[in-house]
Amino acid sequence: MEKAGATMHAAVLHSAGDLRYETVPTPAPREDEALVAISANGLCGSDVHFYESGRLGPFVVDRPYIPGHEAVGVIVRSSASRSASASVAVGARVAIEPGIPCRRCSYCLRGLYNLCAEVRFLSAPPENGTFAEYAAVPADFCHPVPDVLSDEEAALVEPVCVGLHACNRADIRPGAPFAIVGAGPIGLVTMLVAFACGAGPAIVLDVVGSRLQKAVELGAAHGVDAADSESAAREVVDATNGEGVPFVFDTSGSSAACALAPRLAARAGVVTIVGWPEASRFPFPIELVIERELDVRGINRYRNTFPAALELMRSRRVDVRPLISHRFAFERVLDAFEFASKNRIETIKVIVAETPKTTPSGEADAHRNE
Amino acid sequence: MEKAGATMHAAVLHSAGDLRYETVPTPAPREDEALVAISANGLCGSDVHFYESGRLGPFVVDRPYIPGHEAVGVIVRSSASRSASASVAVGARVAIEPGIPCRRCSYCLRGLYNLCAEVRFLSAPPENGTFAEYAAVPADFCHPVPDVLSDEEAALVEPVCVGLHACNRADIRPGAPFAIVGAGPIGLVTMLVAFACGAGPAIVLDVVGSRLQKAVELGAAHGVDAADSESAAREVVDATNGEGVPFVFDTSGSSAACALAPRLAARAGVVTIVGWPEASRFPFPIELVIERELDVRGINRYRNTFPAALELMRSRRVDVRPLISHRFAFERVLDAFEFASKNRIETIKVIVAETPKTTPSGEADAHRNE
Amino acid sequence: MEKAGATMHAAVLHSAGDLRYETVPTPAPREDEALVAISANGLCGSDVHFYESGRLGPFVVDRPYIPGHEAVGVIVRSSASRSASASVAVGARVAIEPGIPCRRCSYCLRGLYNLCAEVRFLSAPPENGTFAEYAAVPADFCHPVPDVLSDEEAALVEPVCVGLHACNRADIRPGAPFAIVGAGPIGLVTMLVAFACGAGPAIVLDVVGSRLQKAVELGAAHGVDAADSESAAREVVDATNGEGVPFVFDTSGSSAACALAPRLAARAGVVTIVGWPEASRFPFPIELVIERELDVRGINRYRNTFPAALELMRSRRVDVRPLISHRFAFERVLDAFEFASKNRIETIKVIVAETPKTTPSGEADAHRNE
Amino acid sequence: MEKAGATMHAAVLHSAGDLRYETVPTPAPREDEALVAISANGLCGSDVHFYESGRLGPFVVDRPYIPGHEAVGVIVRSSASRSASASVAVGARVAIEPGIPCRRCSYCLRGLYNLCAEVRFLSAPPENGTFAEYAAVPADFCHPVPDVLSDEEAALVEPVCVGLHACNRADIRPGAPFAIVGAGPIGLVTMLVAFACGAGPAIVLDVVGSRLQKAVELGAAHGVDAADSESAAREVVDATNGEGVPFVFDTSGSSAACALAPRLAARAGVVTIVGWPEASRFPFPIELVIERELDVRGINRYRNTFPAALELMRSRRVDVRPLISHRFAFERVLDAFEFASKNRIETIKVIVAETPKTTPSGEADAHRNE
Repeated sequence: MEKAGATMHAAVLHSAGDLRYETVPTPAPREDEALVAISANGLCGSDVHFYESGRLGPFVVDRPYIPGHEAVGVIVRSSASRSASASVAVGARVAIEPGIPCRRCSYCLRGLYNLCAEVRFLSAPPENGTFAEYAAVPADFCHPVPDVLSDEEAALVEPVCVGLHACNRADIRPGAPFAIVGAGPIGLVTMLVAFACGAGPAIVLDVVGSRLQKAVELGAAHGVDAADSESAAREVVDATNGEGVPFVFDTSGSSAACALAPRLAARAGVVTIVGWPEASRFPFPIELVIERELDVRGINRYRNTFPAALELMRSRRVDVRPLISHRFAFERVLDAFEFASKNRIETIKVIVAETPKTTPSGEADAHRNE
Repeated sequence: MEKAGATMHAAVLHSAGDLRYETVPTPAPREDEALVAISANGLCGSDVHFYESGRLGPFVVDRPYIPGHEAVGVIVRSSASRSASASVAVGARVAIEPGIPCRRCSYCLRGLYNLCAEVRFLSAPPENGTFAEYAAVPADFCHPVPDVLSDEEAALVEPVCVGLHACNRADIRPGAPFAIVGAGPIGLVTMLVAFACGAGPAIVLDVVGSRLQKAVELGAAHGVDAADSESAAREVVDATNGEGVPFVFDTSGSSAACALAPRLAARAGVVTIVGWPEASRFPFPIELVIERELDVRGINRYRNTFPAALELMRSRRVDVRPLISHRFAFERVLDAFEFASKNRIETIKVIVAETPKTTPSGEADAHRNE
Repeated sequence: MEKAGATMHAAVLHSAGDLRYETVPTPAPREDEALVAISANGLCGSDVHFYESGRLGPFVVDRPYIPGHEAVGVIVRSSASRSASASVAVGARVAIEPGIPCRRCSYCLRGLYNLCAEVRFLSAPPENGTFAEYAAVPADFCHPVPDVLSDEEAALVEPVCVGLHACNRADIRPGAPFAIVGAGPIGLVTMLVAFACGAGPAIVLDVVGSRLQKAVELGAAHGVDAADSESAAREVVDATNGEGVPFVFDTSGSSAACALAPRLAARAGVVTIVGWPEASRFPFPIELVIERELDVRGINRYRNTFPAALELMRSRRVDVRPLISHRFAFERVLDAFEFASKNRIETIKVIVAETPKTTPSGEADAHRNE
Repeated sequence: MEKAGATMHAAVLHSAGDLRYETVPTPAPREDEALVAISANGLCGSDVHFYESGRLGPFVVDRPYIPGHEAVGVIVRSSASRSASASVAVGARVAIEPGIPCRRCSYCLRGLYNLCAEVRFLSAPPENGTFAEYAAVPADFCHPVPDVLSDEEAALVEPVCVGLHACNRADIRPGAPFAIVGAGPIGLVTMLVAFACGAGPAIVLDVVGSRLQKAVELGAAHGVDAADSESAAREVVDATNGEGVPFVFDTSGSSAACALAPRLAARAGVVTIVGWPEASRFPFPIELVIERELDVRGINRYRNTFPAALELMRSRRVDVRPLISHRFAFERVLDAFEFASKNRIETIKVIVAETPKTTPSGEADAHRNE
């Protein structure tokens, strides 16, 4: 079953646009690490961004590396000596938490390990990711997957963790209305997690009608066209007795949308910024933050979320299956990247699996999730 | 429709066992109060306790008063002059929040109004309650009921608020396992609210098998017989990898069960005490509180919960319909008390309605919920 | 002693620049209100702003009103019938909390009464303030003043409350370094309160050297010239091992300074915005909020702070005496406004007292605090 | 300077009463550990307890081990390869945090490392402690000591951390009155830290008059004789307008006192249990926890407290010097244990130092602090 010490197939990004399906050395797990045979990967927008432009924020592709960080697989070898790994023995199916911290700085000791300055994030160049047959991961960053979940669902626990961390940071409350700015994959999972936390009803804003429609299918009470900020803000305020909502999540990655978020918030509201606005400095209505005593909270990935996210998925209180829009076999991983790059609006989540549930065919090599 | 200035029917408790269906003056709403025509009442265990023994805790029935505090009705007159009452105009269907605070002490100003020393609690003798045709209530303590909810469901928002306040005080987290000690009505609604907050799986403990069965029907993963504390504690610990659960709710009203609660808790766990133990001083394992750094939190009714609870019920994330076990017409309110008193174990919630959904008949004058 | 039912002297602002020392009717306390004979007032920057320009934010001077909201006095009459007023009987020396909420909206019931949409703020036109011989105030918004505090000190409990609310909102921690952007009166009281909460050491930034010097006299470890944002940010980061500080307070009222604040913050830091930036929309580094998972929290006045602030002052853990830079007799209130308007940088706090501690004399009619 | 690879002197406890001053191998620092040359130790009550009875809670002295865990010293060798150790290079004077967690379990990852099931606590048998010339400690558990602090003061940062963790867990608020039950060393440091957090005034309860006197010397407003629980509770309630205090700390280790603590608490109060009651199961007034909505919070040592505690000590907001009652040279460590065992009431903190500040002499071999 295992090919350790030997070689494996992997998707290797050499530079912008130059992704290759290659044979590379299988990684050797270090102390306290497990070797995971990858069975499925979700394709993240950041993977596509590196593929298209060779960089993202401070990270630059200056040597070949393996992308991918939404992965599930089976443990085939474990060097872990500690009790922490007892539940992740050889043979266990696990989801991989991809941000490995130093465990020794003040952030790690305080439990804020996602903010560790030395965090190794799998797939943040030059750190290798999970679009490969194997990955080596610390045993305590391998999280057991409940039987009820398929591999492709379990791969999506990573974006669910983003939504869960956003809800945790917001300290969202049961029975509280909320707004989501941006109905992309992260906006949708954040909405699903917020529902699972008891919050609602939801108002979702986007500039793409089909995304709003998807949000409504998934339970949003209102879809609001965000093309015009003035009318969008008015629509939300009108829908909430002139109050605004106590919780707003901006997942849009748009400066205009980010600046819109506080205008949707009720007094004492919490505005959680999940998406990175494309322009780094833009007019933000800080006067509303003061007048309404808002909290504006940033989030950077997640921490301590995998077990809870997997439980929410196991109990189907967060059901990510409707988010899987396309599937590719691992051998066609290059096609998956190219497809996602060319069809940004239409795709929600693309899954790349070792043993795909369906055989892709046709011109796009993609199987539309009806 | 309205009979104000005149008289109304009411259930009046004169002393232990002496409940009468009488004609009394209709209350006159004071400034900022609304007059509510009551359509349905839930029968609370505390009402039955006063009926049986004429006292509960510090409260004594020393003159006739009207019991009842789980009520829904329609506003028929409003003296409220303020904007706060805009959404509760004449004709609005509302649930009544029965604990009216002074609004001026430091607890009220801090939002802890349930702890106000001068709180008037409808149905806490000598304060009249809602087993009557009318009740006068401050407009801001009348909460609009969503159309989707029936009167009898809406009446149960009050016990749902107890569960919601318990979950708020516990700061229960999505994806977190929890245990409920005591599967009576409050235990069950607390479980339902905790599920709605994303928590789970649930372990429920009780000494009555039929109650455990009901808990499992409503979603509990395990029902544990609490008759023997040692084996019950061991069973919970075994079911949680030796860890215990991060959240425990004691709703049992039993000293032995209350002392059991901390033993079920994981390190850093939160033990929320909802039910009043029958013996006021008993051995409590404070050493576990220290060793495991537990939080033990008491709750006394609820605050700021009605709108959120009604939203959880509107969206059916908390569905109280399976908790309604019996129904009586208002004219048969004496029978309802007598029935509940004689069938404590079998009844979950008894509803007394002006226009009952079903016509009770048969020897017990009770209609069993299929 | 009392002149109720009759007339009193007051400072009345008719329009920008037109402040008059006039005779007006003494206010009549309503139910639950006390009549307070004012003994001292602090002069707030907002009072001066109305005096200079006739407006501030949404408030416009469109008819004559009395400014002033930092006041202490003695209760001379009380209509209060409730126990809440027991500690504020006739003869009690009290500090006035000037923002009176509706007590009935969801914000009031949640304890967020400073965010009540119907709050009456004494001295926010057209609401009369406290530059008068008498003011009528709800009994529970009159806070007993400990004997050890002089009238002029006690008058400054209001700005101390701004600093305390800022520290409460920030949830400042003992032993945590912090930065204050803006060393005006609010910046200085916020620093003093933060010290009293155990925080420190403090870095203070301002563009005026004399203010930085005052901050250092009051305990700041570093004074940083904020004229150049780049070098100021670098200086703070260098002084903190490249980390930044966990708590930043912006009290500057400057857009450039507000945008500087997040740059001074460590990962997981809290940036509390106390001062209203003069331009309402300006580039704010939201990307740092995300990358570092910052919390940006606005504050709007204060809530539930007077008793704690008075205790901090009583125990001299917050000593405001060094902040009193000038004193005027009440008869010279017009001179006080004119002086403060012409000497913005030099003045920290101006006190206007019925019985001034010192007799002002000389060309400026002001007595410099040694 | 260093004698590594060789031998060192140490106090070795072989069994109850059998403490020996011996020559043992110097420990070899493992990866990421530093070797610290110990300069001063505080003598903790738990050390004395092991000395007297050979056991404490679950820990039993079944083979020789070195006691001591309140230690300061100088780093003489460092195997640490990481940046985390940059500030703790060879030559740095450091305080030792003695509880070393596994860094990999869910408690460690959440920042609750004091609750890690695998924590190695220096001096908890069979783990060696710091009554020795050298100790090996992970570099990130060595905390730099500010220059202004003497060795003997710095050694007391460990008990200060207990007080700080208690205040953190209580979330004590500025200006809030509090009560301390038990005026031993931990009670006194908790009071000092609470003062440093802005809390007060303080009421202290104990059964020993000299301890109450010491508490008053250190700033307590009231000392209350706790011998009779009824009168003690009444005295506290009377001193607080019948309200009780919002924060109570039980540091007494007495069952009767622990049961008294909730009776001193105001509604919505927080009762933090710091001391282990001698009887593990005793009547605890859980009915007050419910009626008043109290929080009862246990604490087990501390986490993430050393840097903040050292800053509070550096700035003299927590001044532990008055707590040092006796000093011994390290060579006389056996005398120190014997003295502390025989003079429990009279001693507050005993310091054992390599280079004692004063030369002990006289019959008790102890130097009374002034």
